[in-house]
Amino acid sequence: MKIRDFCEIMERIAPRALAMEWDRVGLLIGTDRKEIKRVLVALDLTVPVAEEAIAGDYDLVLTHHPIFLEPVTAISPDRFETAAAYRLIRHGIGMFAAHTNLDAAQGGVNDVLAGLLGLIDIQPLPPENLGRMGALKEPVPFSAFTEMCASMLHTEARIVGDTNDPIRSVAVIGGAGGGDVAHVAMAGCDAFVTGEMKHHQALEAAYLGLHCCVLGHYETENIVLKPLIDRLQKESFDVQYFLTQSGNAPLPCPEGGTRNE
Amino acid sequence: MKIRDFCEIMERIAPRALAMEWDRVGLLIGTDRKEIKRVLVALDLTVPVAEEAIAGDYDLVLTHHPIFLEPVTAISPDRFETAAAYRLIRHGIGMFAAHTNLDAAQGGVNDVLAGLLGLIDIQPLPPENLGRMGALKEPVPFSAFTEMCASMLHTEARIVGDTNDPIRSVAVIGGAGGGDVAHVAMAGCDAFVTGEMKHHQALEAAYLGLHCCVLGHYETENIVLKPLIDRLQKESFDVQYFLTQSGNAPLPCPEGGTRNE
Amino acid sequence: MKIRDFCEIMERIAPRALAMEWDRVGLLIGTDRKEIKRVLVALDLTVPVAEEAIAGDYDLVLTHHPIFLEPVTAISPDRFETAAAYRLIRHGIGMFAAHTNLDAAQGGVNDVLAGLLGLIDIQPLPPENLGRMGALKEPVPFSAFTEMCASMLHTEARIVGDTNDPIRSVAVIGGAGGGDVAHVAMAGCDAFVTGEMKHHQALEAAYLGLHCCVLGHYETENIVLKPLIDRLQKESFDVQYFLTQSGNAPLPCPEGGTRNE
Amino acid sequence: MKIRDFCEIMERIAPRALAMEWDRVGLLIGTDRKEIKRVLVALDLTVPVAEEAIAGDYDLVLTHHPIFLEPVTAISPDRFETAAAYRLIRHGIGMFAAHTNLDAAQGGVNDVLAGLLGLIDIQPLPPENLGRMGALKEPVPFSAFTEMCASMLHTEARIVGDTNDPIRSVAVIGGAGGGDVAHVAMAGCDAFVTGEMKHHQALEAAYLGLHCCVLGHYETENIVLKPLIDRLQKESFDVQYFLTQSGNAPLPCPEGGTRNE
Amino acid sequence: MKIRDFCEIMERIAPRALAMEWDRVGLLIGTDRKEIKRVLVALDLTVPVAEEAIAGDYDLVLTHHPIFLEPVTAISPDRFETAAAYRLIRHGIGMFAAHTNLDAAQGGVNDVLAGLLGLIDIQPLPPENLGRMGALKEPVPFSAFTEMCASMLHTEARIVGDTNDPIRSVAVIGGAGGGDVAHVAMAGCDAFVTGEMKHHQALEAAYLGLHCCVLGHYETENIVLKPLIDRLQKESFDVQYFLTQSGNAPLPCPEGGTRNE
Amino acid sequence: MKIRDFCEIMERIAPRALAMEWDRVGLLIGTDRKEIKRVLVALDLTVPVAEEAIAGDYDLVLTHHPIFLEPVTAISPDRFETAAAYRLIRHGIGMFAAHTNLDAAQGGVNDVLAGLLGLIDIQPLPPENLGRMGALKEPVPFSAFTEMCASMLHTEARIVGDTNDPIRSVAVIGGAGGGDVAHVAMAGCDAFVTGEMKHHQALEAAYLGLHCCVLGHYETENIVLKPLIDRLQKESFDVQYFLTQSGNAPLPCPEGGTRNE
Repeated sequence: MKIRDFCEIMERIAPRALAMEWDRVGLLIGTDRKEIKRVLVALDLTVPVAEEAIAGDYDLVLTHHPIFLEPVTAISPDRFETAAAYRLIRHGIGMFAAHTNLDAAQGGVNDVLAGLLGLIDIQPLPPENLGRMGALKEPVPFSAFTEMCASMLHTEARIVGDTNDPIRSVAVIGGAGGGDVAHVAMAGCDAFVTGEMKHHQALEAAYLGLHCCVLGHYETENIVLKPLIDRLQKESFDVQYFLTQSGNAPLPCPEGGTRNE
Repeated sequence: MKIRDFCEIMERIAPRALAMEWDRVGLLIGTDRKEIKRVLVALDLTVPVAEEAIAGDYDLVLTHHPIFLEPVTAISPDRFETAAAYRLIRHGIGMFAAHTNLDAAQGGVNDVLAGLLGLIDIQPLPPENLGRMGALKEPVPFSAFTEMCASMLHTEARIVGDTNDPIRSVAVIGGAGGGDVAHVAMAGCDAFVTGEMKHHQALEAAYLGLHCCVLGHYETENIVLKPLIDRLQKESFDVQYFLTQSGNAPLPCPEGGTRNE
Repeated sequence: MKIRDFCEIMERIAPRALAMEWDRVGLLIGTDRKEIKRVLVALDLTVPVAEEAIAGDYDLVLTHHPIFLEPVTAISPDRFETAAAYRLIRHGIGMFAAHTNLDAAQGGVNDVLAGLLGLIDIQPLPPENLGRMGALKEPVPFSAFTEMCASMLHTEARIVGDTNDPIRSVAVIGGAGGGDVAHVAMAGCDAFVTGEMKHHQALEAAYLGLHCCVLGHYETENIVLKPLIDRLQKESFDVQYFLTQSGNAPLPCPEGGTRNE
Repeated sequence: MKIRDFCEIMERIAPRALAMEWDRVGLLIGTDRKEIKRVLVALDLTVPVAEEAIAGDYDLVLTHHPIFLEPVTAISPDRFETAAAYRLIRHGIGMFAAHTNLDAAQGGVNDVLAGLLGLIDIQPLPPENLGRMGALKEPVPFSAFTEMCASMLHTEARIVGDTNDPIRSVAVIGGAGGGDVAHVAMAGCDAFVTGEMKHHQALEAAYLGLHCCVLGHYETENIVLKPLIDRLQKESFDVQYFLTQSGNAPLPCPEGGTRNE
Repeated sequence: MKIRDFCEIMERIAPRALAMEWDRVGLLIGTDRKEIKRVLVALDLTVPVAEEAIAGDYDLVLTHHPIFLEPVTAISPDRFETAAAYRLIRHGIGMFAAHTNLDAAQGGVNDVLAGLLGLIDIQPLPPENLGRMGALKEPVPFSAFTEMCASMLHTEARIVGDTNDPIRSVAVIGGAGGGDVAHVAMAGCDAFVTGEMKHHQALEAAYLGLHCCVLGHYETENIVLKPLIDRLQKESFDVQYFLTQSGNAPLPCPEGGTRNE
Repeated sequence: MKIRDFCEIMERIAPRALAMEWDRVGLLIGTDRKEIKRVLVALDLTVPVAEEAIAGDYDLVLTHHPIFLEPVTAISPDRFETAAAYRLIRHGIGMFAAHTNLDAAQGGVNDVLAGLLGLIDIQPLPPENLGRMGALKEPVPFSAFTEMCASMLHTEARIVGDTNDPIRSVAVIGGAGGGDVAHVAMAGCDAFVTGEMKHHQALEAAYLGLHCCVLGHYETENIVLKPLIDRLQKESFDVQYFLTQSGNAPLPCPEGGTRNE
């Protein structure tokens, strides 16, 4: 299979038309004329992921986040912005990103996250329809909801709201969703599960009476990778997809926790 | 004492000239002609803080963060942006903010934070000199350092870096310091303590080999309030300063944690 | 009646959709949950108007001009930009503005002005349709027209054009309409009645052969207030509307005139 | 004398370095190689002034205001923006403007205005030093001051402030000075004489307690032309300067006034 | 015939609606009320063209390029930007430009150029449809094609591409067409004939395998003037059109060439 | 020798501080930790140059022009913007650019060009000092000067100006210097030698009476490469520098010319 064919499969899974206008998605490194056999799947193209791809004889890296937050004018193996991209090119490995299109897609980041948390009646979250909203099968106290979320994502939460309040309707936005606090409140949800929330966004949530459960950018997005691999594998007979071994959470809770109480 | 006199004391403690150019500091609500007797001190002017000020017959609220992230064109008690400001004005209570000038000031946010973590040889952190850097009395493993930080600030950490590595030199920036990861690495510090760090900033820190200990925006700034009150109280005979009872962390770790391990 | 109900009445009188895109109209101070009994109506929210509202136990001030020409970041009783707004909030009085929507509305500023000058066949003035144009019942010399205008608005005029020329068709734009000189000339009107006209706008009018009668910003807009009160009063049984006593012309001709001839 | 020599004389009278950065001054039409004998002096290059220059066999027109408020891309005798310039070029007549440099110059617009009103101890008005401030020989009521100003400039005033208040210190800015209300109040003047003031500028002046006497853009600037001619005539033996006959006030008070009282 | 009538004829030949949005076309100097008898036609309004128009008693100059690359704020006979315009106005001669509308028009610059090179099946060149594309009757080597082009336009070429390659399909854009190299390649043409091409545009053409034949801005546009005159002459009985004698190529190859080989 | 050492040598030859602010110079691809033995020198990093570097086992390519006219967000071997850069990275070859700093440097592009044309009393050309100006040993007719230039640079010229005029003082700007026509005329030079000149720049030169000799972007810059190699070779014992075999002029005159006269 050529990368060109892979691009077509991805277009069905996460159509480019779903991406935000500012986003950069698709084949970002290499040529679509290349034949591929092994694809490494990761949230980010970091240097360890690039080195794993090289060591493991991969032909393509598929990530959620694009390379180059800012457009570049030089490509150095010694600078954070370009170090991993340099390594991939150096070894002839391609790189493909599905970002906000994968957030919004059916079966994408937020669909998986909503499913993992057991939501039912799942619908797109207005106004951008990247996130999802749905309901718990039955109301649970926010404390129990928080524990369930943290447990499902194997991490710890930071929270906004009274832990005794009952939660029924829930919105989810994987990654940095804190800027959507007002949208979620306007959609009438009891709780909001996301990955990153800034201080003043938490103050706004508290003002709006919105319960929030903040679980880490990586932790709320990483869960899409396995279902994505399964789906890709079903559509590709001669290509094998592997989840990266190097893509650990960049900002984890320390093992055993840090609270001495 | 008039607010005018209070402003002069604050100018000695956190001179306006130390504030970043974009910042808004000083008397943001009310008139400096007003006589004051009771000052409420908080990190943010939230609605609960405003209501505490009203109920407690305070004359002035002193905060770290300015009101109005964006300039406003209307003032409503029903909108997050203006709800607390409306309540203060409604009850004739003033509001004064010391933000990046208090970050940078001697004895300010970052000096207090550095002291609390036991740093010695404390100096301003280039290039903006808002943060501080210094050394631990003796090297400790990053795991122990992280536990010490979390314990001192009564919270839990998220971290970047190997917990076995020894830490000696440390930089601190209270609040959202993640954008300074490269500055801290360039300053040669082993570890960086801050309040907020975005996903890609954590990836950059990992690339640079910088150990990070991320403890919460509120948790890394709130520690300045008591020393600030002490200092203000020493300079004011006829005014009393009180720490808010309503200014809890907006994004805390849930009591007892969320990890089911 | 609550302010919410008042807002609905005003929406029928001067629909928000008629306002220019840059304008700020509607409830600018306070909450629409408030019960109102007494409404003070003025062209501008000045400090004297605010003080009249406080002294007269008013619940709401209705004005033509919005507060805050520029968005604000602080609210002081001692600065022109916020002094009157501060006073209203301090006393729990709301403030509502109907600006370019009231200019454009049926029965609004320019309709009233056109009627007052005796125009017939009144239509919106292209291209923005804020102003109006119409005809005098019979042609009069520009000198007589000018005297009539000045007399109707109780002020004196500054003029462009030959006082002997006959005037039949007339355009009116209350307030600062000088920028529309070319639009009025293109609409084929003999004369243009407005409130403010800059020097080079007068030169352009002279070039275009357009007779202008400039009568003061306040004087050409203030005339809407009484008809507006009448209309509001008809729709509100339990609320009373009063015209401000403090809203004199800010830039009047001195009594008795200043010309020593 | 060539225009080049005239330019040198004007550079001594109103140096280019005094002009605001955004201004366009100097020779705006024609060539400095041209020999001149007759110069027509006017506030503005209007079509009647251009036609007077043509009929009177003038070689150069000297004005206060530049041509072309906005840079032009076409030159038509039928459009306001370029009609007069077209006529001058068509007849080989040059055009020279001294604008904000003449406002600021010693013996320029504002110096002449201050002198005409009998001010003593005249100094530049901060911060831009285009205007002037000084004192009356003895305090007079604002009503008398207003009458004196209107009489000296042969026009009528619009005013801000109580006519009974005594006036001693006065600031003057010919033309559109309303934007400097706060500067004048900060300079501590009792009264401000200028040519144009917008509605909200008048409200600000009233708030600041600044008495204003607004007399017309043309009326407050035109007074510089005769002294300027005298000064130029003294430095030029073979050139004759004439005041335009066509430069009447574009926005005068109607003769006999318009007030029916 | 008045210029107004001439404008109507030109509107049929090169409709304004075909011009690019940024372009300035139509009557750029003078009035459409003027009677004309003699029209001088040139590519540019240079000083020699203006002087020829004056000496030859012309009423109007018709050019391809507009005057004033940048809008002007002064009009001097001594500065390149305005020297020719000044001379025309001085002598009452009008000026009319048909620029990108003449490029795009049927029978315009690119239609004439395509025809001159013997192309068949001529169509607009996407995406802007200013240029044209078509086919040679039979393939010729690029060397022969280049010689034919240079010979037809009486100049010498600079080229991109192998001179032995066969050329069949050709795109043409008179003037500075180098920025369209990628568009031409995407349209599938073998060769691209234009007037100006920058260094990096030539590198891009080489990368894309596009043969280019660059013949001079003037040389590729000037060819429209005679056909345009013929067409205008047919529609105007009482006006005579003449091709300028002063409009030589501004950047010609020296006679006899410069290569010493 | 490491690339780091090579960078130091280049810093002496063409200091970064001489580059224009907008320019991108220095090591643009790869790491300065790399050991180098063979350096390929070319004007541009094109795909043929990259392939020559790969085939010839080069470690570094040194060019005059930077890669990436616009910053990039993806790196593809199939797109003009990134095709050559991709190939270099793929093969671990570095790339270093000295652009406007090499134009301005002593012994750089313009010094070499001035020397090649036999100029004496060579000085920097104001105001940017990238170019050079000097004198011919004795005046020659412009026709002879043009032939000499074309002959020295092995190309043909396009020219502005009368071929009979005598030339003594000359300015040179290799590459696209046409925008400096007014600067050169102001510097008082008789003739201007450059590589690219747009149509309206040639019209301006003709207006200013400036003789121009336009010889091709590549042709006027390429001449620096051999002297640069010589200089580099003298400072590097263990590195060999080679002039590219693939860097032909991208826009040459066809062999034998195209003029059929």
